[in-house]
Amino acid sequence: MNMFGKTTKLLVATALVAGLATTDAMAKKVYKWKLATTWGPTLSPFIDAPKKFAAMVEEMSDGRLKIRVDASNKHKAALGILDMVKGGQYEMGHSASYYWKGKDINTLPLSTMPFGLTTPEQYAWFYYGGGKELTQKVYAPHKVLSYPGGSSGNQMGGWFRKEINTVDDLKGLKMRIPGFAGEIMAKLGLTVTNIAPGELYTSLERGTIDALEWVGPGMDINMGFNKIAPYYYTGWHEPGLDLQFLINEKAFNKLPKDLQAIVETAMKAAAHDMYLQNYHMSAEAWASIEKDYPNIKIKTFPKEVMDAMKKVNLELREEMKAKNPLLKEILDSQEAYQKKARKWTEMSDYLYLKDNL
Amino acid sequence: MNMFGKTTKLLVATALVAGLATTDAMAKKVYKWKLATTWGPTLSPFIDAPKKFAAMVEEMSDGRLKIRVDASNKHKAALGILDMVKGGQYEMGHSASYYWKGKDINTLPLSTMPFGLTTPEQYAWFYYGGGKELTQKVYAPHKVLSYPGGSSGNQMGGWFRKEINTVDDLKGLKMRIPGFAGEIMAKLGLTVTNIAPGELYTSLERGTIDALEWVGPGMDINMGFNKIAPYYYTGWHEPGLDLQFLINEKAFNKLPKDLQAIVETAMKAAAHDMYLQNYHMSAEAWASIEKDYPNIKIKTFPKEVMDAMKKVNLELREEMKAKNPLLKEILDSQEAYQKKARKWTEMSDYLYLKDNL
Repeated sequence: MNMFGKTTKLLVATALVAGLATTDAMAKKVYKWKLATTWGPTLSPFIDAPKKFAAMVEEMSDGRLKIRVDASNKHKAALGILDMVKGGQYEMGHSASYYWKGKDINTLPLSTMPFGLTTPEQYAWFYYGGGKELTQKVYAPHKVLSYPGGSSGNQMGGWFRKEINTVDDLKGLKMRIPGFAGEIMAKLGLTVTNIAPGELYTSLERGTIDALEWVGPGMDINMGFNKIAPYYYTGWHEPGLDLQFLINEKAFNKLPKDLQAIVETAMKAAAHDMYLQNYHMSAEAWASIEKDYPNIKIKTFPKEVMDAMKKVNLELREEMKAKNPLLKEILDSQEAYQKKARKWTEMSDYLYLKDNL
Repeated sequence: MNMFGKTTKLLVATALVAGLATTDAMAKKVYKWKLATTWGPTLSPFIDAPKKFAAMVEEMSDGRLKIRVDASNKHKAALGILDMVKGGQYEMGHSASYYWKGKDINTLPLSTMPFGLTTPEQYAWFYYGGGKELTQKVYAPHKVLSYPGGSSGNQMGGWFRKEINTVDDLKGLKMRIPGFAGEIMAKLGLTVTNIAPGELYTSLERGTIDALEWVGPGMDINMGFNKIAPYYYTGWHEPGLDLQFLINEKAFNKLPKDLQAIVETAMKAAAHDMYLQNYHMSAEAWASIEKDYPNIKIKTFPKEVMDAMKKVNLELREEMKAKNPLLKEILDSQEAYQKKARKWTEMSDYLYLKDNL
């Protein structure tokens, strides 16, 4: 029998095919992840950010990392995202850092702070002013990674049933307003609560709350709040709310380097895209108010009210700082950055806008 | 001889290794690209955007797409980027669209326009207001693709040797100011020129020009202009300059889908990063002016001068529109978008800043 007989040739061919298949499987090891969001399935643009992120990751990885995005109606735990990512039920989450202030107060200022940084200032602080390192310090004990998840831009101050002329008008109101702004409002005599997005309208309709802030015209008007609470106030409390991508640290460390880079870059692109989408939606919605929603009354809080909020803001910041060293470190860092960056914001965008409205 | 004898085993093993190597080479086909920039090798943050872009692409593609970034000292054609990408000497470029207005007037408004869109407005217009489609229309005849390359934010109005109090003070000055702003200045009696970044300081020092605008404090102060021309004016003419990534269409079409997605996403992340880096550098530099550069005199153009610029701006826009149908389409689209979005910019960021400076 010839050494290079038929059987041998067949064997070699089979081995080659097997070799190809094996390498292909190796090169193509598919990771399947799940991502839980705080948002309902149609809550644009918040829900779009993780969806676009997942699509980018799948395309860039040629299908090697597939991420299933679950809206809140699927997992039924809109405000339980951090726990689920920590516990590993979900490899990723999309939510907002200040929702975890009850579990860990240091998570609070990573979203936004009343009278704080605007969107470009907040992002410049995160990437170039030490924010990233402080964020890692906050989330390291939770064994999760936290990255910017998209900015809502400067938010509106909320919807009220009646006009607010004095600080006394605020007293006794029940309001949905999360984060530190909620604490300021509580100090001013309101009863403050956080409610998951899907239950906001019903809560307002049933009188569980008298007022609420949500985001801005692009998202608010779709929710129908204006039908019940037509006084719509401009913002002070969330000048640059940044949402949040959460990743289970162990899951992230298991990815090869190229997939890690793909995840990180896709988060950046999706976060910025959400800001633009929201800007666009707000511009469109604002333009429609005059024509389509003549009952909406646009207001700015009077100076007396704004001054009271600012005073309480400073007092509460100092109280919190005294009790929490890491929180103090973060707030001091943000405050120093704001002082520096706000001067530039004034000389560039503010002065330009002042002359071009 | 046993059918599964030594020789056969060896053959099979060799075939397996060969199989692995072949597939690995297939999966690992490496594309090597070159990218030419208008910027010198140390011109941060402009030069950093394409460098970070290339690094992200290489990491995400696991080395399958390597992009060499050439600064202007390498290719010696700072203002020849479009031609080199068109001609295929470079697969990519990083520059600014309005540098090509002499070749194709329609490229002009894709960078920024005097009294036009701010950075978030410009990006929202590009991705959600029809800008992307219009950009494709402009660049299709050149067989290149053009994407946002990073915003400088709201630029400063420039450095002057003497104070500008009236429109007459402008007359006869020789100024480096590119784009449409240059045409406005020409109409107001200045002699206007564009000069590549590397020659700006020398031109000012030798008196080839009397004044120049460059970017903003973060980049300007490093250039030393203040030593010669200490009057530093706030901006009107480039409220949201967006740089530009250019890609040779044929080269892009040769990439597999996953690498195309990697290129697109990396451009988005690098562009936004540049905006933040520049914001940070400007904030830092602005904070240093008072302390380190007491000779710099910060000024805003007086109302008489600003009104004259606005008047000429409107006149020249109408003249250009009458001559160029596609340019008219772009300018009309931007103007309509600005009207809508500016109202939202006013209600959100502007009102907030007004109360928090």
